[in-house]
Amino acid sequence: MKDLKRSSRRQLLRMGASVGGGLLAARESMLASENTPGQLGTPLGPYGERSVFEKAVRWRRESKTPETGSSFTPLQDSVGTVTPSSLHYERHHAGIPTIDPAQHRLVIHGMMKRPLSLTVAEIRRLPSVSRTLVLECGGNSGSEWAAKTGPDVQRSYGLVSCSEWTGVPLSLLLTEVGVEPGASWVIAEGADACRMERSIPIAKAMDNILVAYGQNGEALRPAQGYPLRLIIPGWEGNTNVKWLHSLKVTDQAYMARDETAKYTDLMPDGKARIFTYQMEAKSVITFPSGEQTLSGPNLYELTGLAWSGRGRIERVEITTNGGRSWAKAELQEPRLPIAFTRFRLPWRFDGREAVIGSRAVDESGYVQPTREALIAARGTNSAYHFNGIKFWKVQANGTVTNVEA
Amino acid sequence: MKDLKRSSRRQLLRMGASVGGGLLAARESMLASENTPGQLGTPLGPYGERSVFEKAVRWRRESKTPETGSSFTPLQDSVGTVTPSSLHYERHHAGIPTIDPAQHRLVIHGMMKRPLSLTVAEIRRLPSVSRTLVLECGGNSGSEWAAKTGPDVQRSYGLVSCSEWTGVPLSLLLTEVGVEPGASWVIAEGADACRMERSIPIAKAMDNILVAYGQNGEALRPAQGYPLRLIIPGWEGNTNVKWLHSLKVTDQAYMARDETAKYTDLMPDGKARIFTYQMEAKSVITFPSGEQTLSGPNLYELTGLAWSGRGRIERVEITTNGGRSWAKAELQEPRLPIAFTRFRLPWRFDGREAVIGSRAVDESGYVQPTREALIAARGTNSAYHFNGIKFWKVQANGTVTNVEA
Repeated sequence: MKDLKRSSRRQLLRMGASVGGGLLAARESMLASENTPGQLGTPLGPYGERSVFEKAVRWRRESKTPETGSSFTPLQDSVGTVTPSSLHYERHHAGIPTIDPAQHRLVIHGMMKRPLSLTVAEIRRLPSVSRTLVLECGGNSGSEWAAKTGPDVQRSYGLVSCSEWTGVPLSLLLTEVGVEPGASWVIAEGADACRMERSIPIAKAMDNILVAYGQNGEALRPAQGYPLRLIIPGWEGNTNVKWLHSLKVTDQAYMARDETAKYTDLMPDGKARIFTYQMEAKSVITFPSGEQTLSGPNLYELTGLAWSGRGRIERVEITTNGGRSWAKAELQEPRLPIAFTRFRLPWRFDGREAVIGSRAVDESGYVQPTREALIAARGTNSAYHFNGIKFWKVQANGTVTNVEA
Repeated sequence: MKDLKRSSRRQLLRMGASVGGGLLAARESMLASENTPGQLGTPLGPYGERSVFEKAVRWRRESKTPETGSSFTPLQDSVGTVTPSSLHYERHHAGIPTIDPAQHRLVIHGMMKRPLSLTVAEIRRLPSVSRTLVLECGGNSGSEWAAKTGPDVQRSYGLVSCSEWTGVPLSLLLTEVGVEPGASWVIAEGADACRMERSIPIAKAMDNILVAYGQNGEALRPAQGYPLRLIIPGWEGNTNVKWLHSLKVTDQAYMARDETAKYTDLMPDGKARIFTYQMEAKSVITFPSGEQTLSGPNLYELTGLAWSGRGRIERVEITTNGGRSWAKAELQEPRLPIAFTRFRLPWRFDGREAVIGSRAVDESGYVQPTREALIAARGTNSAYHFNGIKFWKVQANGTVTNVEA
């Protein structure tokens, strides 16, 4: 509580001049006449919906095969640090299966003493943990490599979301089955029509992976893997296999489609890096961002989201002059490891063109690189793991555009 | 991450014996034949819904006036620490108004230099903060006073929920308007048909109250006050005025209906305590709880929720013998102040009747009292602020009942 108080006071002092000026205009004449509904509202209900006036939706490209593709979280409409489950980004390869949890089984087999087949109810009775974690597609903001990206923050950066996940530690299940010596990989397979598969080193499987059944306080949503999925803290979304139905312990990786033909990083020398699971520190300003408009010169609160697959966000810096100087943003506490951290900074828009951007530093000391530095190291053949500093251009008339679009 | 690892290992050691025994039976024969959907699933979608197999809903009493009353969060189905906005408890006095945010104003007037009328868009542009906070009706579990309570945890304890709220510090607005000397109260009024009003001491208003527009990453739900509500950390839900449209600064409380005829505590001597805003430490086991059934003797994970209006939960103890002895439960981190803290403890049900209960201790050192101690101090005239230790009886056949029902 002290933090909140101190923080709001500090912000108030910064914004005081402006607040007295234009933003909060007193309108004495309106005091009496406003807000007179005067009739009974709608009754209490079993399962609530949002207001009819709220229109934020996930965006996807028009497609003749809408069962495969991506839909993007409307980050420009986000507040706080949690993503509503209804707006969590999607990336499917064969549509969303309809799975009856009473019929579903998780099979654990391969190099082990005691193979298992578990019902969802059995899994829900095991020791559980909850963690708030970001999930980001390995291809998020991939179009920024080629400077042919989306015009707004949703279409360019929206393949990232943050939820509270609840499930059973995979290490518990693997210890129980008695993994045999020499086992080194776990092959996770989904129950979608394409049987999505990924290979996971057993060291990570014994570390902090969850077999999750809960998301934001209720069951996983179908689009996020109902009734079971892997949650792999800090690793690219594709490895977090949805509709999980099989875990096979092996002594080699499977070289599945999504770890060879896809989700690899083609380097300048023509060789591809594979198994690049880890997501690095990243950030993006969500207000003001592409296709938004500032109504004129005034004091505004810049805000956005930062995250890192390696742990906590330690610092976020903001530039409003294209990177010539940087100011430290205020970070919303608590800063949880591998979760969205909301950052905020008051900024006076004086009516002159400004290029704004954010730079995140995580607890490992890793500093989010510029796009140029990233390209110097990795070329432009990649479609994945883009985490360069993101700039938006605020034009003199208040219109905001994507610098790379 | 280390915490998760250590925690799951510790739980594993505790549960190891049982896991090998009955809970996780290997079914080799099932490995090949399961989970063969083999057809394309449903397409990507704009705004997701939950699985058709998920049935958890809020509960309310049948009523001829369903615009007034309460609906209860299904705590028995909860996982983790966040309440889905669709399942957040409701307590309305005149139904849920349908408010167009483009037409709505927040009027701040009374003893001040510069009265204000703010649009929702203007409020959303001001410095903001986000906080995960529990919200509990002052009347939650009130029927436990009379030992005529609901049979399950939803109907007896479901007027409590936890969300991430985002909004503007009220202190910022009050500083801006220039409150006059001698002002001591803020009267908050809602835009519902009954114009719900509550009086709030100005010291609290300057401390940590939010004028909130965001809930769990999107706009407030209509049932939780769309487009604006007060969020008063640690205070009974009724003071967190929904559909907020007016804040009047005065030099006296209004003695409104909901702080005189209601939401007061009638003491044994016939006098009533008023303005008892603060919610004290409380906890309840959600599994196993009333009307659930254990399938037989086995090892189970007891779990539940603890919270305190005064700050962090420091400790939760669990009894399985009606209070004769207590064991320390594991607490899910991060433990945020005035938020749900999930607790868990492995427990072997041996097929003999057991009376289970939980006792929370908060960071102020306050220990959740027994029902008897509470009644000794406050009698049984009260309908509000019941926070006694809650017991469930697990019968020999595995059926669970509410001891006070």
